Amino acid sequence: MTANTLDISAGQLATEVGGQVVGDATTTITGISGLTEARPGDVSFLADERYLALLTDSKASAVLCRRALDDCDKVQIVVADPNLAFIEIVERHGPQPRPLPRRIHPTAIIEDHVTIGDDVAIGPYVVIRAGSVIGSGCTINAQCFIGNDCQLGERCLLHPRVTIRERCRLGTAVIIHAGAVIGADGFGYASVAGVHRKIPQVGSVDIGDDVEIGANTTIDRARFDHTVIGAGTKIDNLVMIAHNVQIGAHGIICGQVGIAGSTAIGDGVMILGQAAVTGHIRIGDGAVIAGRAGVSKNLPAKATVRGNPARDIREFQQQELALRRMPRTIDKLQARIAELERRLEEKR
Amino acid sequence: MTANTLDISAGQLATEVGGQVVGDATTTITGISGLTEARPGDVSFLADERYLALLTDSKASAVLCRRALDDCDKVQIVVADPNLAFIEIVERHGPQPRPLPRRIHPTAIIEDHVTIGDDVAIGPYVVIRAGSVIGSGCTINAQCFIGNDCQLGERCLLHPRVTIRERCRLGTAVIIHAGAVIGADGFGYASVAGVHRKIPQVGSVDIGDDVEIGANTTIDRARFDHTVIGAGTKIDNLVMIAHNVQIGAHGIICGQVGIAGSTAIGDGVMILGQAAVTGHIRIGDGAVIAGRAGVSKNLPAKATVRGNPARDIREFQQQELALRRMPRTIDKLQARIAELERRLEEKR
Amino acid sequence: MTANTLDISAGQLATEVGGQVVGDATTTITGISGLTEARPGDVSFLADERYLALLTDSKASAVLCRRALDDCDKVQIVVADPNLAFIEIVERHGPQPRPLPRRIHPTAIIEDHVTIGDDVAIGPYVVIRAGSVIGSGCTINAQCFIGNDCQLGERCLLHPRVTIRERCRLGTAVIIHAGAVIGADGFGYASVAGVHRKIPQVGSVDIGDDVEIGANTTIDRARFDHTVIGAGTKIDNLVMIAHNVQIGAHGIICGQVGIAGSTAIGDGVMILGQAAVTGHIRIGDGAVIAGRAGVSKNLPAKATVRGNPARDIREFQQQELALRRMPRTIDKLQARIAELERRLEEKR
Repeated sequence: MTANTLDISAGQLATEVGGQVVGDATTTITGISGLTEARPGDVSFLADERYLALLTDSKASAVLCRRALDDCDKVQIVVADPNLAFIEIVERHGPQPRPLPRRIHPTAIIEDHVTIGDDVAIGPYVVIRAGSVIGSGCTINAQCFIGNDCQLGERCLLHPRVTIRERCRLGTAVIIHAGAVIGADGFGYASVAGVHRKIPQVGSVDIGDDVEIGANTTIDRARFDHTVIGAGTKIDNLVMIAHNVQIGAHGIICGQVGIAGSTAIGDGVMILGQAAVTGHIRIGDGAVIAGRAGVSKNLPAKATVRGNPARDIREFQQQELALRRMPRTIDKLQARIAELERRLEEKR
Repeated sequence: MTANTLDISAGQLATEVGGQVVGDATTTITGISGLTEARPGDVSFLADERYLALLTDSKASAVLCRRALDDCDKVQIVVADPNLAFIEIVERHGPQPRPLPRRIHPTAIIEDHVTIGDDVAIGPYVVIRAGSVIGSGCTINAQCFIGNDCQLGERCLLHPRVTIRERCRLGTAVIIHAGAVIGADGFGYASVAGVHRKIPQVGSVDIGDDVEIGANTTIDRARFDHTVIGAGTKIDNLVMIAHNVQIGAHGIICGQVGIAGSTAIGDGVMILGQAAVTGHIRIGDGAVIAGRAGVSKNLPAKATVRGNPARDIREFQQQELALRRMPRTIDKLQARIAELERRLEEKR
Repeated sequence: MTANTLDISAGQLATEVGGQVVGDATTTITGISGLTEARPGDVSFLADERYLALLTDSKASAVLCRRALDDCDKVQIVVADPNLAFIEIVERHGPQPRPLPRRIHPTAIIEDHVTIGDDVAIGPYVVIRAGSVIGSGCTINAQCFIGNDCQLGERCLLHPRVTIRERCRLGTAVIIHAGAVIGADGFGYASVAGVHRKIPQVGSVDIGDDVEIGANTTIDRARFDHTVIGAGTKIDNLVMIAHNVQIGAHGIICGQVGIAGSTAIGDGVMILGQAAVTGHIRIGDGAVIAGRAGVSKNLPAKATVRGNPARDIREFQQQELALRRMPRTIDKLQARIAELERRLEEKR
């Protein structure tokens, strides 16, 4: 961490997170870090006892852990969930981005008929077009663009240089990273004799509460109606979500994934990096799609798939294993056939 | 659709698109929608009779269709091409983006020696550098950047936050979506003893008439000469087109496709999502490249390929089928060999 | 090349690059181009004698080459490395982007406590937040955003519309192309009962000297500490580099590659287009990862891998060959078994 300004005792930290100290509670903690990067004075955390070796090698002075450890030279703060407790410590004591002033920067261009809630921060060179509504507590960083008739719920955070086209809706506490484009036209043409005539894309995008959208990701507006991102879904960088896609709540969509038009994805679906989902299909709740998988058919709830074309992960693994063994399997068959041929020859 | 302000009779709509009404021509139409999302009062369309079940379930009051349907409870407007007729209705009556005023916003920075045609709209915080020419009827939305000595033909539409580097040329009626970058340096280095020295990229990009380019897509400038996108070609979001690529007319290039340097692609080529085409090869006119295919060799005209490495789609399907059957095929061979061995053993 | 303003003799060019003229040294050179696009009057270069056929067909008047060629109708300039000599000629005589004036544009918003070196050019609508340090000779084009407490070394070049979030560090002579986002939050959540709680990403990004980063590429900030890009590494467009990734010096990372979190990549590694590297692994120095490969395990130094899952390239090729031959191999086995069955039947 580049800025470590902590000056607190291990005992005080333990009190803050409702933990028990094992060791010297008066130890001064001066920084926060992961086990690997920690320096003396830092507090760190042991998310899982698989990482015990990292703890042994770590220079951290204190560690959050789930139970008191044998033979540990660090001060231990025992808590039920070290990962969550550590998040709380980082949120309270870690380096904070300098806040954007809670005002509208004089260079921001807010057109007429824009409604802006209380306690809003709008940075320089932001453009908000007529008819939009910005909820209380929103932070809209420099150079963002918000088109006509958009709605942002309370406490949304737009990082610099986000583009939201006309008539899109964001719920409460949505976070959008730099360079993302929400509501560009869907990719739709009526092709007659090889010439592609643009199909108007007159729908919009509807983003639920607590959604986070990564840098340079694009989510296209629907042909009609809405492209939908369900509440609590987290989307990484450079993801492409096409028009009319419906994504359920609390999903995880990793970097460079592509989802083609009109596909409906259930709740709690996890799609790992660079995977692709074809258009006009349905993915059931709780499905897990492995990295780089290519999904071209409906998936039932809780399916776990891998490969291209994607298939059940156990089937995939068996097939991969069979394929890898096949040359040797065939060599053995050849040897047995040759032996049979030799023996039949002898019998002549 | 979020805004439905229509108030027109089915008969009037039919007249507008040159169709025949079957049913009550005085029915009032109040909205436009797809079959699935339609509410009572909406007009929709039946693109293909495969979707007849959707029509039966639809709440639409009227439907555009190719021929009069039996047992249809909706008002029918019979036209030669329901899809195209519906596009016309949406263009005429659908929700319109509020137009950007036909003026140069006072915050736009237009350097000296820029030529701007009639009826041009330029939004706030646009930067146009010296030597550029902007054709009549162009719309350049907020925060776009146009470098030195660019040429934009008539009626181009740049959505917010498009970047066009120096000396690029756009034809007539080109549409570019937010975040796209036209004319960044090609990725070229001369590597000597492991150190990569930048090769100057002094060419540019030449984009034909009626091209559409998706959000956050990047098209690099040529080392010399031009990277070329042919007239009528449509490119989706997050596509990467490298330096010196030549793409023909009326192509379709879907999301997240990558085309490596100096490859020449013919007319009417369709490349589906996440496919990749290697550098320095030729793709013939009318070729179709399936989603996620990896093309590493020249393709003849009208080739249809799939897989990685990409191969003829029938060959691909036969190979996939053979592979999937192979474990069972081998099991059967093993059983026959075991039977032969047993019988030979008996004969001893 | 769109602008050819050269007026120099072949002899003078040869002197500039330390070469020997074979042919008429007084020939006037009026342009610079690749062999294929060259017009009469142009100088071009023969990088490799494999391209001799292109030279024969070229309209160039002069050519840089490694040795005097037989039967060549062009003026030859013989140099040790024609590619490097040609780069020098293009850098000296090729079309130059019109320079950004060496001043701070009056519309740039430079917050308090920003330190700016000598000879810096800052374009319109740039925002630089408090605490940042801009080295001498930097060029920061229009609409860039630099967050709080960033450090840019000397002679960095930011193309228009680059975003650098707070506390990131760039070395000397770093080039970043339009739309790139440096320092967005890493993609990390603690998921409890299906709800994803954001893990603060309080680290930053550290970019070494002479790094080049492509258009719309994203490099996320570390959870703690730094995401690191080593000196001299070149990164193409639309690449995704996740939090806590460490990339060594002098690497080449091509378009649309994705590298997942906490992976450590050695020096001089080459990763070709659309490849993916999973998280928490190590790639040894000098490894080469083929286009579209999916790397899911540690790789030793100098490994060359291909396929998904990626494996040694010779192993990959043998497996591909075996797979392709397998249907015929199995047909042959079937025929031999049928023959054995027939002969055993006869013997009954």
